[in-house]
Amino acid sequence: MLARRAGLNGTRPFQRAVASTLNISRAPVQSTGYAYRFLSQKAGSSSLLKRPQLSHLSRWRWRTCPVSFSQIRIITTHPLPQSKSRVLRWIYRSLAYLGFFVLFSGGCVVAFFVYDYNTYNENPFEEELKISELALSPRRGGPKNLPIAEHLLDDDDDEKKKEKKHKPKLVVLGTGWGSVALLKQINPDDYHIVVVSPSNYFLFTPMLPSATVGTLELRSLVEPIRRIVGAVKGHFMKASAEDVLFSEKLVECSAVGPNGEKQHFYLPYDKLIIGVGNAGLLMRTWIKLNILGSVTNPHGVKGLENCHFLKDITDARLIRNTVVRNLELASLPTTSDQERRRLLSFVVCGGGPTGVEFAAELFDMLNEDLCRYYPKILRSEISVHLIQSRGHILNTYDEALSKYAEDRFAHDQVDVLTNSRVAEVQADKILFTQKDENNQVITKEIPMGFCLWSTGVSQTEFCQKLAKKLDGQNNRHALETDTHLRLIGAPLGDVYAVGDCSTVQNNISDHIVTFLRTLAWEKGQDPERMQISFSDWRKVAQRVKARFPQASDHLRRLDKLFQQYDKDQSGTLDFGELRELLAQIDSKLTSLPATAQRAHQQGQYLARKLTRMAQMAPGMKLNEVSYGDLDEAVYKAFEYKHMGSLAYVGNAAVFDFGGISFSGGLLAVYLWRSVYFAQSVSLRTRMLLAMDWSKRAMFGRDLMNF
Amino acid sequence: MLARRAGLNGTRPFQRAVASTLNISRAPVQSTGYAYRFLSQKAGSSSLLKRPQLSHLSRWRWRTCPVSFSQIRIITTHPLPQSKSRVLRWIYRSLAYLGFFVLFSGGCVVAFFVYDYNTYNENPFEEELKISELALSPRRGGPKNLPIAEHLLDDDDDEKKKEKKHKPKLVVLGTGWGSVALLKQINPDDYHIVVVSPSNYFLFTPMLPSATVGTLELRSLVEPIRRIVGAVKGHFMKASAEDVLFSEKLVECSAVGPNGEKQHFYLPYDKLIIGVGNAGLLMRTWIKLNILGSVTNPHGVKGLENCHFLKDITDARLIRNTVVRNLELASLPTTSDQERRRLLSFVVCGGGPTGVEFAAELFDMLNEDLCRYYPKILRSEISVHLIQSRGHILNTYDEALSKYAEDRFAHDQVDVLTNSRVAEVQADKILFTQKDENNQVITKEIPMGFCLWSTGVSQTEFCQKLAKKLDGQNNRHALETDTHLRLIGAPLGDVYAVGDCSTVQNNISDHIVTFLRTLAWEKGQDPERMQISFSDWRKVAQRVKARFPQASDHLRRLDKLFQQYDKDQSGTLDFGELRELLAQIDSKLTSLPATAQRAHQQGQYLARKLTRMAQMAPGMKLNEVSYGDLDEAVYKAFEYKHMGSLAYVGNAAVFDFGGISFSGGLLAVYLWRSVYFAQSVSLRTRMLLAMDWSKRAMFGRDLMNF
Repeated sequence: MLARRAGLNGTRPFQRAVASTLNISRAPVQSTGYAYRFLSQKAGSSSLLKRPQLSHLSRWRWRTCPVSFSQIRIITTHPLPQSKSRVLRWIYRSLAYLGFFVLFSGGCVVAFFVYDYNTYNENPFEEELKISELALSPRRGGPKNLPIAEHLLDDDDDEKKKEKKHKPKLVVLGTGWGSVALLKQINPDDYHIVVVSPSNYFLFTPMLPSATVGTLELRSLVEPIRRIVGAVKGHFMKASAEDVLFSEKLVECSAVGPNGEKQHFYLPYDKLIIGVGNAGLLMRTWIKLNILGSVTNPHGVKGLENCHFLKDITDARLIRNTVVRNLELASLPTTSDQERRRLLSFVVCGGGPTGVEFAAELFDMLNEDLCRYYPKILRSEISVHLIQSRGHILNTYDEALSKYAEDRFAHDQVDVLTNSRVAEVQADKILFTQKDENNQVITKEIPMGFCLWSTGVSQTEFCQKLAKKLDGQNNRHALETDTHLRLIGAPLGDVYAVGDCSTVQNNISDHIVTFLRTLAWEKGQDPERMQISFSDWRKVAQRVKARFPQASDHLRRLDKLFQQYDKDQSGTLDFGELRELLAQIDSKLTSLPATAQRAHQQGQYLARKLTRMAQMAPGMKLNEVSYGDLDEAVYKAFEYKHMGSLAYVGNAAVFDFGGISFSGGLLAVYLWRSVYFAQSVSLRTRMLLAMDWSKRAMFGRDLMNF
Repeated sequence: MLARRAGLNGTRPFQRAVASTLNISRAPVQSTGYAYRFLSQKAGSSSLLKRPQLSHLSRWRWRTCPVSFSQIRIITTHPLPQSKSRVLRWIYRSLAYLGFFVLFSGGCVVAFFVYDYNTYNENPFEEELKISELALSPRRGGPKNLPIAEHLLDDDDDEKKKEKKHKPKLVVLGTGWGSVALLKQINPDDYHIVVVSPSNYFLFTPMLPSATVGTLELRSLVEPIRRIVGAVKGHFMKASAEDVLFSEKLVECSAVGPNGEKQHFYLPYDKLIIGVGNAGLLMRTWIKLNILGSVTNPHGVKGLENCHFLKDITDARLIRNTVVRNLELASLPTTSDQERRRLLSFVVCGGGPTGVEFAAELFDMLNEDLCRYYPKILRSEISVHLIQSRGHILNTYDEALSKYAEDRFAHDQVDVLTNSRVAEVQADKILFTQKDENNQVITKEIPMGFCLWSTGVSQTEFCQKLAKKLDGQNNRHALETDTHLRLIGAPLGDVYAVGDCSTVQNNISDHIVTFLRTLAWEKGQDPERMQISFSDWRKVAQRVKARFPQASDHLRRLDKLFQQYDKDQSGTLDFGELRELLAQIDSKLTSLPATAQRAHQQGQYLARKLTRMAQMAPGMKLNEVSYGDLDEAVYKAFEYKHMGSLAYVGNAAVFDFGGISFSGGLLAVYLWRSVYFAQSVSLRTRMLLAMDWSKRAMFGRDLMNF
């Protein structure tokens, strides 16, 4: 036996078979580990290998056995045909790779299970807790003799929290974009943070329209606020802010108890951030209270109780349920044709991004999912109407984009009614006015089964109360702040406001004396009688820019402005001329948009400033600085940087990135999604978003209502 | 240059470098395709390769270039050290595999995007529809002169549906386990199927307790019924069944219109399946109506309006919101310590699987997620109580399993109160009675912030109405059917009932004359006076088994039974003896459990029978067979096969698979999940379940209420 001769006793049958097919004469074949060495003493005496034998060998080698390269002496002088063996090799290698892929994926799954296994906690809670007596039964006080929450239940829960117990108290009202941006940015060690809000989640508002028809699920758009607050070792209370006592530095809060009764308490603060949003949340309650009296509401439109709104996550759920309910009703044999058309007539009031995106999402759903599961007659009797008071939809965007969106809607058979004002919403129809060619106002009506009111916001009761209490608050819609976001009228540096509930004052010309004061003091002159030279003007402009960063764009060509307003060509500006100049810049400044973007930037700005102030505090104390404009001393004024707007318009999206605007089909939609995916608040929401999008692609939208 | 000499002009630099490091003298190196051949004419004149050069070459080979094995003449006589080169090779190969893994995964993602891209539909609907005039305005008729839905809106929607327009009308009431099992099993071509239900989804009830605390999401447990109905080209109507007119073969249905008014209509049927479940859904409405009168409800317990139920998906949402609300209230500074303990006292009434699993899930959530985000004092003040009227929890399971579950709960500090009967539920406490050692009934109370009522079911109004109308319906809790699942009292073969709303009659002894009829006819005797020999008894037993499959287990030892009941040792049984024998078997048969499993098997059974009947119909028509017991002629009676019970008991699970029972920790939980994962209704729900479980592991449960 060759195998025996070759010293292969005890090796595996396969090896022996290979050795014998190779027919290597006088070759001492050794087996060490998994590398089998074929050594022939004289190369010249090598044998000729035939094809099948060769492929047999090489296949085996490639698969299992890395033969050591240096010790091979298999010699041939015939170039043999190889194509089949190569294909085989290629197949084997592909299979190996695929096997590896499967194994690796399987390994990942197993690893995940091991991880999952370790996330369960089987041990009941047995920790000794120390809780301050004052936290358990807080002392009462203040004008209303309410409990004052100075010490909190979880102040001693861990070391980190214990350390922060006596830090300055930072109270944040609201859990919107501004508050969350602040919480994610702030240095957790500097303040004892308490967040107060009636909702215990942060809502990713820009994607809310997608949740109304099931493109996204509700839970994918919200993040538990306790998770965000927990990351900065803060505290959360599910309560509403009722009032602020500025002199006592107390916020009055209220929570609805288990039996519906209101429980009031005070929360002390050193710094207060107001980020309570606008009255979207309260709209429903407000309307409910007023249904009986049939009062005209803040928007001057009768019958808003017949509308849906889209401000909160609950709104999205109600809308989804109503849309599906209408589809189900329309499929019943008892429903007449006219009634069916009414039920399937969807009206959207307001042509801003929310209204437009809802109309687009609704159309998508009706176009993509409806016909699969509902009688086809429904699809042919559906109508979507969009009522817009301005001349174009998306009127805050670039005109080309408005046009694109309108064309898109025309293609999608969404009926866009511009220059139309809603007069009244009734249970089964909507009345609106339009001007005809002769400028005559005519009233039209649309029977409808669903109406979304997506225009106009109003101030919350809380903000109205604060605005009334404070001097210098003249805006009917929002709390006014200075450019350092400090609430005007409140003690300087105590109270800040961010987000939709606030607006930043841009009255530069009112501050003219402030700007001139140092200059006048240097020259020993009365600021109102001073002559301002060009170099003085440059100094003034510098200070205007620092104080009102939003004005920078209008202060670029200082020489031109100087020339233009130096009417008497004296080479100097007098007080009147300067005031005129500044007033003109004022008029060019628009108020900042009430968007998530602005709130987000404001929150980040405040977080940075507060962190900075905490850093500077020891130095300040040392120098006994405790009065004056600390904010201005330590940090720059807030400057809003517009990053662009985007909107989804039904299998297409439009973008307006500071001058660069573009629009497009599905690829733009993917981009639109990527932007929001990136901006999303946590890994959790990102995973859920990805899952929802995949789910839509694979199974369509869920048309169920419960 | 060696490279030039070796004929490597025009080849890539790397090859050249390799060739020169190899330093092969007189070696005509050829490059064909990607296999580079190194041929030396005389093996004896080969050069000695040094280590780094070798590793260089072999590395290159392994990575990129399958050198043809037969044409290599690289010769060495030194066995060189190889460990480093092997490690390198191994690393390179691993990297190659990893790269492949990444590429393959990336490829999958890209493929998915391409797929996703093609799921959007941009074209507005432009199809011409033909709809029967009778579908648009149905003719009126019947005793109440209501519209009769003979033709449906989507009867002509596609070819498949058109074909089925004139097939026998199969009407299915309800969308529970029974109905869905039927729809998934039935041959879609045989019947014109209409499904009627007030809910447009199928709910995967066994996992409902997991949804109450956010381990699973609500949408993962429901599947749109229109998707299931669509798969068999059926029709769905969101309406409630109100009555059945058996002689006219009409179901009276009602739907709630857009303004809350009820719209009634008739739906004609040839075969009717009643699978409406029990009154869980209606419990809330019922209680609401009765709150003012403070009537004692069907369960004989006062104050059920203070309880939560767990029958429907909405219940799970309400429970989740209430649990989180209580946690939030307990964290407020205004809540006293006593009130906090009350709010955090959770009571579960009923120790069946639902109650036990809810208590387990609640405990898990409190143990795993609460301390991360809420003040720790909450965890130490929480109590979970389980009130069970029997001696053990899970009393339908094997005793060892009950014990295991009780031990588990003892370890988890869940307070199990056995032999306790709830007397009254008040808004803030629950009263229950227990017997002390002296058998004295004493009343105890537990203050509570949340109470789940998970025991007892009652019949729906619809079923009560039917039971009253029909002869032979004597069960207070459910509709009675024969073993062919035909509703007793209704015209034979028209109406079937499945699931929790029904129960299968097992009165074998009542049918004794039927069993003996053929036998008596053969012998020309009166069945009641016949003497039954052992061979006769075997024939009778055969027929009993066929008609009452559930009795098979008790009919195994025919000889023993015969001997036992042949009291006069005559070798024959007389009528009285046989009746006694059968009555004894009757008494051993218990009614089938009201579980998803039973409903599922019944649905499948009916689907198979209906398909079979449709296949036999042409033959029947030919032979003019249109009367008699068709069901028995074409198909066997329904036999329930118990596949086992399982329950989740807090990071552990118990299983009871027909005699084999076992319990265990987390690995059993994974098994428990696998069972339900496999049973889940669609790929969609499976994906969502997997996602939910991963989400829990990675981010914990979402503690938000909205």
